[in-house]
Amino acid sequence: MIQLLEPHPDFEIAALTASESSAGKTYRQAAKWRVDSPIPADVAEMTVTATDPAEVPNDVDLLFSSLPSSIGSEVEPDFCEAGYVVSSNSSNARMAEDVPLVIPEVNADHIDLLEVQRDERGWDGALVKNPNCSTITFVPTLAALEEFGLQRVHVATLQAVSGAGYDGVSSMEIIDNAIPYIGSEEDKLETESKKLLGTFEGAALDLHDVEVGASCNRIPTIDGHLENVFVETESDVSPEEAAEAMREYPGLDLPSSPGQLIEVFEEPDRPQPRLDRTLGDGMKISAGGIRESTFGLQYNCLAHNTMRGAAGASVLNGELLLEKGYL
Amino acid sequence: MIQLLEPHPDFEIAALTASESSAGKTYRQAAKWRVDSPIPADVAEMTVTATDPAEVPNDVDLLFSSLPSSIGSEVEPDFCEAGYVVSSNSSNARMAEDVPLVIPEVNADHIDLLEVQRDERGWDGALVKNPNCSTITFVPTLAALEEFGLQRVHVATLQAVSGAGYDGVSSMEIIDNAIPYIGSEEDKLETESKKLLGTFEGAALDLHDVEVGASCNRIPTIDGHLENVFVETESDVSPEEAAEAMREYPGLDLPSSPGQLIEVFEEPDRPQPRLDRTLGDGMKISAGGIRESTFGLQYNCLAHNTMRGAAGASVLNGELLLEKGYL
Amino acid sequence: MIQLLEPHPDFEIAALTASESSAGKTYRQAAKWRVDSPIPADVAEMTVTATDPAEVPNDVDLLFSSLPSSIGSEVEPDFCEAGYVVSSNSSNARMAEDVPLVIPEVNADHIDLLEVQRDERGWDGALVKNPNCSTITFVPTLAALEEFGLQRVHVATLQAVSGAGYDGVSSMEIIDNAIPYIGSEEDKLETESKKLLGTFEGAALDLHDVEVGASCNRIPTIDGHLENVFVETESDVSPEEAAEAMREYPGLDLPSSPGQLIEVFEEPDRPQPRLDRTLGDGMKISAGGIRESTFGLQYNCLAHNTMRGAAGASVLNGELLLEKGYL
Amino acid sequence: MIQLLEPHPDFEIAALTASESSAGKTYRQAAKWRVDSPIPADVAEMTVTATDPAEVPNDVDLLFSSLPSSIGSEVEPDFCEAGYVVSSNSSNARMAEDVPLVIPEVNADHIDLLEVQRDERGWDGALVKNPNCSTITFVPTLAALEEFGLQRVHVATLQAVSGAGYDGVSSMEIIDNAIPYIGSEEDKLETESKKLLGTFEGAALDLHDVEVGASCNRIPTIDGHLENVFVETESDVSPEEAAEAMREYPGLDLPSSPGQLIEVFEEPDRPQPRLDRTLGDGMKISAGGIRESTFGLQYNCLAHNTMRGAAGASVLNGELLLEKGYL
Repeated sequence: MIQLLEPHPDFEIAALTASESSAGKTYRQAAKWRVDSPIPADVAEMTVTATDPAEVPNDVDLLFSSLPSSIGSEVEPDFCEAGYVVSSNSSNARMAEDVPLVIPEVNADHIDLLEVQRDERGWDGALVKNPNCSTITFVPTLAALEEFGLQRVHVATLQAVSGAGYDGVSSMEIIDNAIPYIGSEEDKLETESKKLLGTFEGAALDLHDVEVGASCNRIPTIDGHLENVFVETESDVSPEEAAEAMREYPGLDLPSSPGQLIEVFEEPDRPQPRLDRTLGDGMKISAGGIRESTFGLQYNCLAHNTMRGAAGASVLNGELLLEKGYL
Repeated sequence: MIQLLEPHPDFEIAALTASESSAGKTYRQAAKWRVDSPIPADVAEMTVTATDPAEVPNDVDLLFSSLPSSIGSEVEPDFCEAGYVVSSNSSNARMAEDVPLVIPEVNADHIDLLEVQRDERGWDGALVKNPNCSTITFVPTLAALEEFGLQRVHVATLQAVSGAGYDGVSSMEIIDNAIPYIGSEEDKLETESKKLLGTFEGAALDLHDVEVGASCNRIPTIDGHLENVFVETESDVSPEEAAEAMREYPGLDLPSSPGQLIEVFEEPDRPQPRLDRTLGDGMKISAGGIRESTFGLQYNCLAHNTMRGAAGASVLNGELLLEKGYL
Repeated sequence: MIQLLEPHPDFEIAALTASESSAGKTYRQAAKWRVDSPIPADVAEMTVTATDPAEVPNDVDLLFSSLPSSIGSEVEPDFCEAGYVVSSNSSNARMAEDVPLVIPEVNADHIDLLEVQRDERGWDGALVKNPNCSTITFVPTLAALEEFGLQRVHVATLQAVSGAGYDGVSSMEIIDNAIPYIGSEEDKLETESKKLLGTFEGAALDLHDVEVGASCNRIPTIDGHLENVFVETESDVSPEEAAEAMREYPGLDLPSSPGQLIEVFEEPDRPQPRLDRTLGDGMKISAGGIRESTFGLQYNCLAHNTMRGAAGASVLNGELLLEKGYL
Repeated sequence: MIQLLEPHPDFEIAALTASESSAGKTYRQAAKWRVDSPIPADVAEMTVTATDPAEVPNDVDLLFSSLPSSIGSEVEPDFCEAGYVVSSNSSNARMAEDVPLVIPEVNADHIDLLEVQRDERGWDGALVKNPNCSTITFVPTLAALEEFGLQRVHVATLQAVSGAGYDGVSSMEIIDNAIPYIGSEEDKLETESKKLLGTFEGAALDLHDVEVGASCNRIPTIDGHLENVFVETESDVSPEEAAEAMREYPGLDLPSSPGQLIEVFEEPDRPQPRLDRTLGDGMKISAGGIRESTFGLQYNCLAHNTMRGAAGASVLNGELLLEKGYL
């Protein structure tokens, strides 16, 4: 997140918050910095404050939140009530009726659900969510196929260990192994996709009636979620038409958006996590292996789970909030 | 294969064949022995002959074949014509109408397709096939659910590198990676499953009309294919009923058969390749994560690809041939 | 440990202890059981007691201890004072002057340091230690070369993740990586080796004057520590003489001892962790790659770190205590 | 190599050569392109010629050679005789008395051995070699310590699979494993280091009399060779002095040279392959874990084996040839 914000053209890091136990320390002291480039020097010396509206300067325009859901569900409403706009990667409240769940290239119009949110909750601030990393990976490809009428989807995921956080998966669990279970992950793919593909026309959001069945696996990759998708559509669609629909799916002109959103490979063995996860600085979706399947189409897709699927997703939502005048 | 046959109660290794270039050498000289126990001493000193009916002793009752399909399709008919019974793991001829494709616990009765084969081809010998390792993994679980009426199946595989042979997958391809493509593998799951679940009543074999869509992935595991299965059945079936059907699926009393065939885990994160691939000396199928899915059931299953899925499968078919009087 | 003791010919599991928070639970409830075979049924239903001499039955002859060193240094003396004999894998007190540090095949005679211990501490019980897993791997090979006069040793280790415990190494730390540091591990190889190779003649233990320099690395293997050893000896020794000395190094007739202790490979690329760690049910040391080096010899050695290097080491010391009449 | 040359400020790709069987094809057709960025468009359409002086345009100033040593030893002299200057990564002729073996930051002055070479061989062209990737990793750190008098060195390597080429290490060999042997690699570290650290004063090259003993291991990392070094010096040197000597070791002002050559970490667990291999675009050496050892110092060092250790090394030597007026 800091690596994305530090060089950002429109945003400037004004404050850093953490738990009470880290408040008062410099970021260098408070953080476990484990990426392959050093902490930006000015950020390293900033003093961390507590995650409390009273401690954060009033002139901060936008807060990025990436908290365990139990903490996010507590503190995010406090900030929104205190007038802050929050772009959140935390999993709490993603399915709440008046909280926009947004991938800007897919459903930027849902952002105006914030009007409903402010009316109902009496907030000066606002709360916007990005979806789970595994949801973000396949929903853009579904959105590209929406014109053919989405009916049924089966998706099997091969997810990288970074999706579980630094200490989330022990090496003894995963070397020479795969784990066919990630707690509550399948539910996220099945429900968040219906909301992202849903329709918002000013009042309430209508969920899409596509039916999604998901099966999630952890495998020994560092970054990059790979997904096998089977789709059944109302009208017939050939692999060539599907590839074209994905390639031509419109991108957005936001700083973190990668231009063309979906890279489609002709090679049947692509995308692959290690080779393709950094496409578009980690913000592209890639797809390949598109072929006719028993009841429709099947294909594979890939996204960088900590970029497009987490930190980059929140920053992109921040950019959308700025463009739409919510900051 | 040799590790399985050397201590076998009913079989004795009488001859070893290889390509012309290895003929005349001892097995120790000819083989690249790369398993974690030494070559059995007597086998090591046996002289390898060419893979040619003229070179193999006439009193050999049963040949095990594990050849590239291009070679298998050439030499296997020669042996059968010369009167040898061949239990083959090679992929050629698996879908031929008069060649039994057999998992003994699933469709032992198909073995009598050999009568048709002998009639049609005028062979004294016989050719029996076991399916591809990825097919063997999920078909027994489908067979257990057959009573509920199989309609549609989606299966995504997470396959171990040993399935491609010792030099099949380069380390540079697979470390920190997954490859969503295995040449012609998807077709094998889709077609072989229909034959294995088909019906044979003495004349021709009727393929099962279940529709299978498969998506195959290679991941960085040594042994053990894990598969995510989505099944739609005619009659409703609860996860509990499915688990019971799998647990009670009858085993066989053959030396290499593991008693109860399918081990069903209650833990949602099992089976896992490294933990569960050696169940029943690698001859069990394991299953778990059974839950309701969007249009039916979903679950995971696992088998040891080089045991239950290859060498062990051929030996088991050899045991069936012996029991049924074909040797 | 339980997997080793449950079928043991001389030992029977009489009690299981754990922290206060687990006391009163069955072992099945208290344990995180993460190995590839189920908990032995009778052990699973045993009630766990607190790790407190007052809670353990008096007629228990031998306690096995595998605790964090901070806890081991607190509770082990209490048990010894209360009359229990403790065979410990915990790292505390290994270098204490009156505590025998023992690999039975290397320095069984050090066990009688217990007489000194009992005299000095007034204990009815006794405390015996086995060394660190990385020390156990290379010391037997040094012991075999002792006849040539050990002078200087450099050892670089390639250690498996299981050596750090189940949650010790995160997958994000180690996939596609190696970590050239294991806290305080180098010191253990450098000091414990001098004690193990030392001389005890009834009074005090004289440390061996071999000088050992160690460099420790964690690599992405599950089990099996591989070590590169460079040895300088007083008298010249050829690779052939070194191999012979290792092969003929005497074993012991204890239930967990593997007969011949050191397996020496001729192949230059052996031993390898995945292929050779289970030799002798994980209790053998293997060695290979023996060649002349710049100032003496170099070779590689390997041991299974959780068997020969931990649980098996403690059980073997228990067997020695029984044989020597300390139980 | 192509990725380095395509954007190079001083070099332009004028011709591409390969085996007879590829001659006449475009590079796109001839190459197995397996890196994570596409082939530069103009290079992709260049026609590949045979590796034969008669086929290569006369105005080519510099040839980069990266061939199996058996082929390199045949064709490189032909090109040199035909007047081409060759910067070669092939292992043949590295130890030949009149062939400069160069790491520009370490022994740029050895390049003038080319005068001797041209005299002796009557070549208009010239042949310069860079060392093996594992040698390049540790020699710069030794060069930095040279002022203290190098005497004895033990080095144990943990080498990435890319060092063996794309198909060099099978996944079945290396997942959950390490291989303590790389054919003829140990010899390269032991001899090439003496040449690189040697003295050239216009006539013959004097090898350094440092004695190096090496032990080489392959581990499951993609890129980056990590090495554990034990050094004994004539004069005492503290870890702080060693760190300072490495940090202040002078760099060069060549396009591919990274400025400061050696990055020294204070953290005891660095450098690590995945975190640190791309420092300085893969052209830095990193070091850490410097501490007193039994007979001197020990430390770890790391370099990117396909950048600093291969393609980048050859390009850097090309830059030195240009600067020194040999092109």
